[in-house]
Amino acid sequence: MKSIVIHAPKDLRVEDHPEASPGPGQIRIRIKAGGICGSDLHYYLHGGFGAVRLREPMVLGHEIAGLVDALGEGVSGLALGQPVAVNPSLPCGACRQCLAGRPNHCLDMRFYGSAMRLPHVQGGFSESLVCEAARAVPLPEGMTPELAAFAEPLSVCLHAARQAGPLLGARVLVTGAGPIGNLAIAVARHAGAREIVVSDLHSTPLLTARRMGADRTHSLTEDADALLPYGLDKGHFDVVFEASGSGAALGAAIHAARPQATIVQLGLGGDVSLPLSSLVAKEITLRGTFRFHAEFALAVEVLARGGIDPTPLLTATMPAAEAVAAFELAADRGRAMKVQLAF
Amino acid sequence: MKSIVIHAPKDLRVEDHPEASPGPGQIRIRIKAGGICGSDLHYYLHGGFGAVRLREPMVLGHEIAGLVDALGEGVSGLALGQPVAVNPSLPCGACRQCLAGRPNHCLDMRFYGSAMRLPHVQGGFSESLVCEAARAVPLPEGMTPELAAFAEPLSVCLHAARQAGPLLGARVLVTGAGPIGNLAIAVARHAGAREIVVSDLHSTPLLTARRMGADRTHSLTEDADALLPYGLDKGHFDVVFEASGSGAALGAAIHAARPQATIVQLGLGGDVSLPLSSLVAKEITLRGTFRFHAEFALAVEVLARGGIDPTPLLTATMPAAEAVAAFELAADRGRAMKVQLAF
Amino acid sequence: MKSIVIHAPKDLRVEDHPEASPGPGQIRIRIKAGGICGSDLHYYLHGGFGAVRLREPMVLGHEIAGLVDALGEGVSGLALGQPVAVNPSLPCGACRQCLAGRPNHCLDMRFYGSAMRLPHVQGGFSESLVCEAARAVPLPEGMTPELAAFAEPLSVCLHAARQAGPLLGARVLVTGAGPIGNLAIAVARHAGAREIVVSDLHSTPLLTARRMGADRTHSLTEDADALLPYGLDKGHFDVVFEASGSGAALGAAIHAARPQATIVQLGLGGDVSLPLSSLVAKEITLRGTFRFHAEFALAVEVLARGGIDPTPLLTATMPAAEAVAAFELAADRGRAMKVQLAF
Amino acid sequence: MKSIVIHAPKDLRVEDHPEASPGPGQIRIRIKAGGICGSDLHYYLHGGFGAVRLREPMVLGHEIAGLVDALGEGVSGLALGQPVAVNPSLPCGACRQCLAGRPNHCLDMRFYGSAMRLPHVQGGFSESLVCEAARAVPLPEGMTPELAAFAEPLSVCLHAARQAGPLLGARVLVTGAGPIGNLAIAVARHAGAREIVVSDLHSTPLLTARRMGADRTHSLTEDADALLPYGLDKGHFDVVFEASGSGAALGAAIHAARPQATIVQLGLGGDVSLPLSSLVAKEITLRGTFRFHAEFALAVEVLARGGIDPTPLLTATMPAAEAVAAFELAADRGRAMKVQLAF
Repeated sequence: MKSIVIHAPKDLRVEDHPEASPGPGQIRIRIKAGGICGSDLHYYLHGGFGAVRLREPMVLGHEIAGLVDALGEGVSGLALGQPVAVNPSLPCGACRQCLAGRPNHCLDMRFYGSAMRLPHVQGGFSESLVCEAARAVPLPEGMTPELAAFAEPLSVCLHAARQAGPLLGARVLVTGAGPIGNLAIAVARHAGAREIVVSDLHSTPLLTARRMGADRTHSLTEDADALLPYGLDKGHFDVVFEASGSGAALGAAIHAARPQATIVQLGLGGDVSLPLSSLVAKEITLRGTFRFHAEFALAVEVLARGGIDPTPLLTATMPAAEAVAAFELAADRGRAMKVQLAF
Repeated sequence: MKSIVIHAPKDLRVEDHPEASPGPGQIRIRIKAGGICGSDLHYYLHGGFGAVRLREPMVLGHEIAGLVDALGEGVSGLALGQPVAVNPSLPCGACRQCLAGRPNHCLDMRFYGSAMRLPHVQGGFSESLVCEAARAVPLPEGMTPELAAFAEPLSVCLHAARQAGPLLGARVLVTGAGPIGNLAIAVARHAGAREIVVSDLHSTPLLTARRMGADRTHSLTEDADALLPYGLDKGHFDVVFEASGSGAALGAAIHAARPQATIVQLGLGGDVSLPLSSLVAKEITLRGTFRFHAEFALAVEVLARGGIDPTPLLTATMPAAEAVAAFELAADRGRAMKVQLAF
Repeated sequence: MKSIVIHAPKDLRVEDHPEASPGPGQIRIRIKAGGICGSDLHYYLHGGFGAVRLREPMVLGHEIAGLVDALGEGVSGLALGQPVAVNPSLPCGACRQCLAGRPNHCLDMRFYGSAMRLPHVQGGFSESLVCEAARAVPLPEGMTPELAAFAEPLSVCLHAARQAGPLLGARVLVTGAGPIGNLAIAVARHAGAREIVVSDLHSTPLLTARRMGADRTHSLTEDADALLPYGLDKGHFDVVFEASGSGAALGAAIHAARPQATIVQLGLGGDVSLPLSSLVAKEITLRGTFRFHAEFALAVEVLARGGIDPTPLLTATMPAAEAVAAFELAADRGRAMKVQLAF
Repeated sequence: MKSIVIHAPKDLRVEDHPEASPGPGQIRIRIKAGGICGSDLHYYLHGGFGAVRLREPMVLGHEIAGLVDALGEGVSGLALGQPVAVNPSLPCGACRQCLAGRPNHCLDMRFYGSAMRLPHVQGGFSESLVCEAARAVPLPEGMTPELAAFAEPLSVCLHAARQAGPLLGARVLVTGAGPIGNLAIAVARHAGAREIVVSDLHSTPLLTARRMGADRTHSLTEDADALLPYGLDKGHFDVVFEASGSGAALGAAIHAARPQATIVQLGLGGDVSLPLSSLVAKEITLRGTFRFHAEFALAVEVLARGGIDPTPLLTATMPAAEAVAAFELAADRGRAMKVQLAF
């Protein structure tokens, strides 16, 4: 079977790996669709991010869906041919963080396609994947693997929304209109936000933002001070989803948010400059959000019933054999939002 | 009557001002005790902080208590000679922020001894003060003005504690052991914290921290990495009160806090460097806290019943006539914690 | 001008009252649409509810909208002919409850068409109404007074939703499918609920519930135990909106809710029987919800943008002159959901 | 070894049982102290409570502490002779409720001395007890088993306090001054409550309440309407701990609580009458609280450091051989608060 393996920055290969058989409690899945995520791109372009660096070859991919292909001993509730989304997150259930009710902070997390631990946890960009049966979420009737491959990034945004508190009636700012920012827009709309304003450096992704539910968009390249007026009388927004990881965006968000607003930080940046006095004087809550847990099954349901339609994000679907071209396209923010691989 | 007036950095004068009479709804208070606060020191040393700069002479002081001296028309519920604490905060009750239930963010706030607006709001370091009757909180039987002058900084810390969520059973870190950090220790103890660890650059204020309720203290001058071990297994503390305003302290706090911990930012700094990836990956909540509202009356009660004893903080009480010497002493963090003026 | 006045149970009269002129800060509104609410019906059928009894004639009505007709001195921001919704709630802003940030619990509340205080606060079922300008919320372009007359009951449900915590991804049960229960369904859908189940004694209102967004409905007349299976493994629902005021419904809700679920009690009943052991053993939160405050302006916006469509609730629009027939129709739950009067 | 076994109402026997050996992961504890709890008394007096009925003989007891006596295979971190408190609660960690972060609602809970499941889970009133090592919480230096036997009821009250939200600065009412009500008083004081008022039918337990930290007490036998004045201006208390399980107390609590107050329901009653209109109109939150989880280890710490002193509750310590007399004493609320058995 073919797998898509990163060896070093810009060294991505489509390799032949032997197909495995499921052990007890495991299943094998014939992968059909896989979305290329920002972290996949970081491995491809830079060999990692922050302290997380590639130290051995690793199959990429954690936005995946397919069909059940083989059942290991003791697996029940799944049939051969059943379409499933694959949850890339698998906490241990036994560590201090899991026992404290924080499974997404598991000390022994096995998250697909991640170089955080060594040996790395191999990802899901393979023609077939053997995994724990518990990772498979059956798709409701009529839901395609292509749609289901959006469950993972949507889970991230549903989890982020929970960090924000109730969004019903909230005035929301989203800074950064990449795939995650755009899904955050859709989640805010789905959760009853009153008003959604979106900013990005560039105007192309803001066209998508409009289709995902933004009421108003601002290209900061065209007007660097576009968010300034929102700061009048101590600020306007109840909630901000900061999805750029940029210190400038965070500073603008603090300025534009009302006192006691919540800024949910989605974007992973390096060290940024924080205007501490403004955060204090406005009693801003800045809260990080990281991955998800129970939200994965919810994401599948929301997508299946059409509560959120991610298709405006899908730039292209390319054959897995053309993985390098697909990664090159996905890395070009001027042309691409989400690129999926077809297996 | 004598008033203590700041004209420019290091230009603090004891001046003779005419005594005023209370108008309708007002009272006159014979001030007895006034604590020198960090913001008083900023005006004295630097002429302000951040964007807030002295633009005209201003009476300093907002930690004050005294005796009712004269009653304006229509004032009831207060008797001549009644000891009172003076609430320096007076929101308008009618602006957008007040109507939204955020009185400490009032757009028309009149906070004593503050250069935020022009003309500045004159402070309370005067032998007598005419103010709205609503500012006066009667002292319970037996409570001295000296004790009551701690009500204001204690209010700040009680408000900060509310930003932290329940402290009962919480493991708490306090970074920065100045007067505010030390009162935060006392509040955490009073609220049932399980463990209180305190860090400061210097070891002298940590002696006070022990007396205020700290279980363990770390001088970062002696061991710059003293907080590092708390970061094991993703971190230890449920709540941090960051009372130094330093980026290094904030970074150490993020490292030492457990996933989903709350860091309450009390210290007002300039722009600091923030490790965004750590904040995101640990889902840290960083929340500013600013002044207080309902907590002022609570602070008077807590002090009166002995729930918190601030006297370990009182370095010296000096006559108002020696204001300059008092400010010099208060500005010397190696020698002083809280200096009060006696009128 | 004509007003609709209740004198005693079943004694509702269309009377001629002199038209008033707006004083300073007031406006006059030509009322166009008025919805008949459950409390209007209680006055009509029983002369009041609980301890609230009619003690003098009172104009009914608090779900009203119309056009600005005259401006009193000092009123700005409103033009003659401007369509507006009228907020029937006007807290004093100065009492203990208002100052504590609880305006809907104002000790000096002036709520239209309410016999809680004496003299009663007259309501808005009149051809013209003089009111404080602050009560008028301008309608966005194109919004009709008929639609705007739904703003008040929708406000009640938006406020109830805030009592429930985040609804995004929540499994929701609504017990009681009258106008309020049905709007609660729409709000839960609008706020991103995962699943909405509705029960009522009768099957007719459940047809409306389907149109308002219910996924599944249960007529308890057809199957008294329809909610029992949801109690399996300690229960299913995250949130319940109890909109019937019946003890039996509350008991069924506690049974069907999961541990630590929130039941928002909308229905006003008398004394009911509460299974205390179940509430304790499942750590259920039972929370009352009463009226609204900031939600009124939000309701106008949500209706205007089509976020919620209340038209399936509108059984009939009848001329104000036929008020008695309109009240008789509205009181017949087998035939009517919401009846509006046209002025 | 001797065990204290309930066979039927009023049929409590001290029996000889063979001593067991610890299996892998288990330890044996020589029990030293055991507190008689209200549920023990229910089995003794009535053979159970609500739907929970004794269906076979059962060793009673779940407030227990002792010394480690033998270590099973694979147990580390515990030494022979180590004093420990025994956590009677052991959730499965794998059921739907555990996975959702609600371990105290475990579907497969093994709680000592409980007839909820069949076979019953035997309790800890035995000279020696074999249990999972995870149940043992080592006692800090100098802490006696007698003190440690209070950890269980204190855990209940610490958990109840978490249901209440922050208690710092709260005005608290406790209705019912039995052992749980009295520990709730101590917890509220420990957590920084502003004012603690306590009511009970009888005046004797109110003497203990004073010693546990109550500011003011009301005997309802002496003055049935003692709580009425607190209802002025819509009510006074921020938080109520309802520890009597009586409908009358709950009604009085709703009356005396301020709008949007939280009433934490600790007392397990049968069906009670609830004034629904008052709960709705005041937007009261009534929340059940059930057992505990993480609070058990916290309780041991709080007791060890003297944060809460439960000794005013200890009426008598009696030899286990006199169990029947001890239960008779414990059942007499006029004479006894907490009775401990010494093994």
